[in-house]
Amino acid sequence: MDSFANLYDVLSKFIILSAREKDIVRSLFVELKFDKGALFLREGDVCNNLAFVNKGIFRYYIEQEGEDKTYNFATEGNFICNYESLIRQVPSAKHIQAIEKATVLSISRDNLHRFYTDVKDGNLFGRIHMENIYAETVRQLISQYTETPEHRYLKFLKQFPDLNQRLPQFYIASYVGVKPQSLSRIRKRLSEKVIY
Amino acid sequence: MDSFANLYDVLSKFIILSAREKDIVRSLFVELKFDKGALFLREGDVCNNLAFVNKGIFRYYIEQEGEDKTYNFATEGNFICNYESLIRQVPSAKHIQAIEKATVLSISRDNLHRFYTDVKDGNLFGRIHMENIYAETVRQLISQYTETPEHRYLKFLKQFPDLNQRLPQFYIASYVGVKPQSLSRIRKRLSEKVIY
Repeated sequence: MDSFANLYDVLSKFIILSAREKDIVRSLFVELKFDKGALFLREGDVCNNLAFVNKGIFRYYIEQEGEDKTYNFATEGNFICNYESLIRQVPSAKHIQAIEKATVLSISRDNLHRFYTDVKDGNLFGRIHMENIYAETVRQLISQYTETPEHRYLKFLKQFPDLNQRLPQFYIASYVGVKPQSLSRIRKRLSEKVIY
Repeated sequence: MDSFANLYDVLSKFIILSAREKDIVRSLFVELKFDKGALFLREGDVCNNLAFVNKGIFRYYIEQEGEDKTYNFATEGNFICNYESLIRQVPSAKHIQAIEKATVLSISRDNLHRFYTDVKDGNLFGRIHMENIYAETVRQLISQYTETPEHRYLKFLKQFPDLNQRLPQFYIASYVGVKPQSLSRIRKRLSEKVIY
């Protein structure tokens, strides 16, 4: 399958791309492959790329006192980026890592500006994309700081329905904010509550 | 002075507006006045307006167990909005209140979409505006949950240099996350540290 098919689909949810504009998009992105464990972005580096995930899973994490803390995931159809670092050109406070073998379409910051300029509705897409990222990030941050592990697990299931099976449990436990044993207890409690 | 002068200035930082487009902008915004204490947005309501502050100060606050907690301010030259509520059309979790007599230029959600469509670079402005709001909100949220009151006070001074004099102390204390007496102690400590 054409590696741009999914990206065109996502763009076409918000804007109409002419054949010529599809070629522009094709010229601005490059396909990159990541081995399991490889970093898309390293803490301390300035984020200069935005990428669309075609295959695989990434996690966002920070290192704190020797432990690492996972606080978000991205999978097929998601974009990966540290937008704060990209926008403000400041060092990233987090790592973005492939936790499965992964393939992405990556666009540099310079080419992203070409996209905004050269595609007629580039800024329309950019505006809507940033609105969605904004609403999602605010929800995510407030959840991270205020919600109970049980709530966070339920939201995880809703946001990433297929990742519950695909991910090692310790990543999910870290995301939820508990030790793996506690995640098992949360799961048990929930399975007793819910009548399927 | 023309009440649109400051708004045109802010828009012109990012896009060039023709005379015709300035008239479009003028037709899309309305001037609203708020008495001290009046609400621009009430918790539970869906935010359907974005406004540019021409005069006065607003605060964002939530009510929690009978107390109210101020966590952001907006003053001349800032926009006020609950973007999450506006974008997702969900009820607002916060109030936005004038804490001085205030005058704003307000645009409805429908007219905002007209702005994006009818002004040539409307989406360019919208994209950059959302990028700035994103970076600012992420910084704000992380600060709110992770930084010490002293750090928050220093950032407040940097972000709102003139508000330190204009605001009642209890609003600043609430924003910093301490009781007013503790804010006095923080100020004393800082004044002893810094050689002016």
